[in-house]
Amino acid sequence: MTKDWREVAAAKKQRINDSIPKEWLIDTSSLGANVMDVPATCGLLSKSEINITNSSATDLVAKLANGSLKAVDVTTAFCKRAAISHQVTNCALEFFPEMALKQAKELDEFYEKHGRTVGPLHGLPISLKDQLRVKGLETTMGYVSWIDKYDTEDSVLTALLRKAGAVFYIKTSVPQSLMVCETVNNITGRSVNPRNKNWSPGGSSGGEGANVGIRGGIIGVGTDIGGSIRVPSAFNFLYGLRPSHGRMPYGKMANSMEGQETVHSVVGPIAHSVPDLRLFVKSVLEQQPWKHDSKVIPMPWRQSEHDAAVQKIQGEKLTLGFFNNDGVVMPHPPILRGVDKVVSTLRENGHTLVDWKPYKHDYAVDLIQGIYASDAGKDIHTVLSESGEPAIPNINDLVDPTRSGADITTLWNVQLQKWKFQMEYLEKWNEMEEKLGKEMDAFIMPITPTAAIRHNQFRYYGYASAINLLDFTSVVVPVTFADKGLDKKNERFKPMNDMDKQVQGEYDAEAYHGAPVAVQIVGRRLTEEKTMAIAEEIGRLLGNAITQ
Amino acid sequence: MTKDWREVAAAKKQRINDSIPKEWLIDTSSLGANVMDVPATCGLLSKSEINITNSSATDLVAKLANGSLKAVDVTTAFCKRAAISHQVTNCALEFFPEMALKQAKELDEFYEKHGRTVGPLHGLPISLKDQLRVKGLETTMGYVSWIDKYDTEDSVLTALLRKAGAVFYIKTSVPQSLMVCETVNNITGRSVNPRNKNWSPGGSSGGEGANVGIRGGIIGVGTDIGGSIRVPSAFNFLYGLRPSHGRMPYGKMANSMEGQETVHSVVGPIAHSVPDLRLFVKSVLEQQPWKHDSKVIPMPWRQSEHDAAVQKIQGEKLTLGFFNNDGVVMPHPPILRGVDKVVSTLRENGHTLVDWKPYKHDYAVDLIQGIYASDAGKDIHTVLSESGEPAIPNINDLVDPTRSGADITTLWNVQLQKWKFQMEYLEKWNEMEEKLGKEMDAFIMPITPTAAIRHNQFRYYGYASAINLLDFTSVVVPVTFADKGLDKKNERFKPMNDMDKQVQGEYDAEAYHGAPVAVQIVGRRLTEEKTMAIAEEIGRLLGNAITQ
Repeated sequence: MTKDWREVAAAKKQRINDSIPKEWLIDTSSLGANVMDVPATCGLLSKSEINITNSSATDLVAKLANGSLKAVDVTTAFCKRAAISHQVTNCALEFFPEMALKQAKELDEFYEKHGRTVGPLHGLPISLKDQLRVKGLETTMGYVSWIDKYDTEDSVLTALLRKAGAVFYIKTSVPQSLMVCETVNNITGRSVNPRNKNWSPGGSSGGEGANVGIRGGIIGVGTDIGGSIRVPSAFNFLYGLRPSHGRMPYGKMANSMEGQETVHSVVGPIAHSVPDLRLFVKSVLEQQPWKHDSKVIPMPWRQSEHDAAVQKIQGEKLTLGFFNNDGVVMPHPPILRGVDKVVSTLRENGHTLVDWKPYKHDYAVDLIQGIYASDAGKDIHTVLSESGEPAIPNINDLVDPTRSGADITTLWNVQLQKWKFQMEYLEKWNEMEEKLGKEMDAFIMPITPTAAIRHNQFRYYGYASAINLLDFTSVVVPVTFADKGLDKKNERFKPMNDMDKQVQGEYDAEAYHGAPVAVQIVGRRLTEEKTMAIAEEIGRLLGNAITQ
Repeated sequence: MTKDWREVAAAKKQRINDSIPKEWLIDTSSLGANVMDVPATCGLLSKSEINITNSSATDLVAKLANGSLKAVDVTTAFCKRAAISHQVTNCALEFFPEMALKQAKELDEFYEKHGRTVGPLHGLPISLKDQLRVKGLETTMGYVSWIDKYDTEDSVLTALLRKAGAVFYIKTSVPQSLMVCETVNNITGRSVNPRNKNWSPGGSSGGEGANVGIRGGIIGVGTDIGGSIRVPSAFNFLYGLRPSHGRMPYGKMANSMEGQETVHSVVGPIAHSVPDLRLFVKSVLEQQPWKHDSKVIPMPWRQSEHDAAVQKIQGEKLTLGFFNNDGVVMPHPPILRGVDKVVSTLRENGHTLVDWKPYKHDYAVDLIQGIYASDAGKDIHTVLSESGEPAIPNINDLVDPTRSGADITTLWNVQLQKWKFQMEYLEKWNEMEEKLGKEMDAFIMPITPTAAIRHNQFRYYGYASAINLLDFTSVVVPVTFADKGLDKKNERFKPMNDMDKQVQGEYDAEAYHGAPVAVQIVGRRLTEEKTMAIAEEIGRLLGNAITQ
């Protein structure tokens, strides 16, 4: 007697809504498209709770550690703000303030008893994408067939964050399958961008993007196999780190296409500043994740790499490559202006900017697209058929069930091509350095061809996914906002191909007005310390270092 | 008009033999089974050449750097000794003394002109397994169909060793397909163990094992996906390092099943001492291999890890696990005695030894065996069919063409099982440390169930391959020699299974008398510095630190 999937999904959705205490419900009937000011104006948060949730994580952990803030108060503030966030952006797949407050209370008791914190994140609420397992809760990842299955243990990262003192209170929404950059599933429907409900918050870590964007979260944990950390960061004017594979623990998390290792999904933080990204990374590395997840490299936080980058920024200055067009899809005018702004700002501040020719990005994008589809969608369709729910429309673009999957020989060939391409790319980088007679410290490029996008218009993943194929470290830096006065439609645009034509055709200065614009700073593989330091400096020069 | 494969193979074999200058040919007609003393007694080497080839690499590079030795003299000595080595063990697939001497001459000229070396290996001859490409030479890997194809560029490792000053002079033999631990192919036939021609030198880096064993080489480069560095090291009383994946560059090398990434083959050194292994590793890492091979982790030589291990050895002492039976195949008496000897020697010297239960090694061995066979031998059979040469008998055990290969979904499941197993193994290690209240620094175990084996008797790979599945760092330490007086057949042996019965049934105290016995020291992933330091201490305590 299997229940109809609609019933199961509706019951789960009701459970999420019921998890919000009645006294935290707000009237959403007369809100406009932009809900960014609702937390401050709806009257639910006290002044102190507004202050707490508007702080940086770095400040909060310092205050929690010196006793000037209590974990229960910080947790309460973020639970309330996340409750608002879910009501206005539909960002949650699990919300559990009771469990969070119990955890916070225990931390306060520990602090009182021992006069010290349990770890570097003592009492800090952290928002989790619904791939991370928390003992006792569901991890549905937006799949109806995974509802009502309760986790019996934490994921490795959850356990280490918990050990570091983090408090969990929300698990955020994802698109069915994770394999698209908008956030929609058959359980909760669609998550929206708090800056404009007609825009996507991005995906697949879109619930994180929305929740951290409106400060229902201070640090959110996302994952990225083709842009899923970077796109939500970009679309919500946030910083985000896509670490290289092997730096952060993915062990025991839920995933699509589990066991697929040709291109690894990676896990990393989304936050309002680089110092907060760094706090997350350092806190996790301090827990020696390589002792628990075999895929993590035993590479502690390298302060010397950070220090060397800072010294270079202050001394001889940086040398950075840049490009704004990958040769497949031309970005919209706001993105071109964003790259220009970063380049000119850096030049004005004495850094050297050089043209970086995007080496065979078209090839890379084709290759990784084939990798995503290497089982021809079998994994996804198997999970869907267990409940009978339909696929979301966005998946069909990516996984074509009329194709047959790759066989082993084909897969090995693809893996060999990937390796060769990666090595060729390194040689291009080396050649540039030989030509310059110095290091090229990183390069700057778009993340998407568009600013925060209208629903159902995300089409081209290549700016993000080429970097996944290379496994380079990437940090998102928010730059500016689309401006209908500045970002005029390019009337002389000549499309390179159909995709290019369609994407550019959808530019509309009015519809995009105010949408966040970002770039990614791309470093060599496993250069998280250095690339974050560069991103921090760029944010500082742009004047986007923190602020709400 | 394709030539018959026998003709092609015979011509290549003739070319190898012709590459030995006539004046370096020796009379092999009246040699016994053990040829270890031939280099010193055959009259071809001068006293100074005997001294050079009996030195350590560490000494040689010091003398080359201070000008007391010339690259041409060192190269000449090793070319002559390798010529002898090939004549008595059949270890070469390429031999190129002319090219080597030209390279050495250039290095001497550089030194004379600039008063300094080109790099840390200046003038040191290094022996290469015939997977490493050297511009201008063939890489056949024992396949007839790859004869007459000349490499147009160096492998990444070759190029970096060259940059460090290494001289190349020989490429050594491998078994057809690389996937077995004896060394036989249809081009040159079988390589034999210099200690007894009835024994195998191991495989697949068996040509390296034989050549370095008889000191036709001082540091040899091998590869290991299931024991191929460790078995030849063990069978030739040598030290060998199987680094974890990502530490040493494999880029642009030839391989079987190229693009297979479920379990990575790794490349590493075989030598007469740990300091020589370390010289190799440090010299390669100094060249920043991660800038050329995308799979290499940017992890320079960590002197602090080495120093901490040395300090622990001298201070609080080591804590090491050990076991002598993986629960699948019981080792022969000489191996059991070898493990006992290591354990008792360490205990006598104040170190703590604890029982390490080999967690699910039977499962690991099955899993990796399935990975080796995941294309059901298609890759190998494709290469064989290009020339028409038959498969060597040993391959049939491993790759069964009557099975169908895995599909993508099966492969992903296997990869997921591998990851879970690795994480479970880490938790067992963590639990042991919790129980002990201190670190377990490494564990000691057999490499094979047998001492250096008679031809065609290598059957069980599990002691080696379980460690490949775990990707732990492993260092081979030579321990002792089988002794018919001490290593009596176990008459009360009760087999656990058919393989166990067959392996134990083949023990013959007389036939094994004098065969090298070794153990492996297994550290956590990417602990090359620490595990080598531990192995060095064990060798020192055993009195096997160097000597021929």
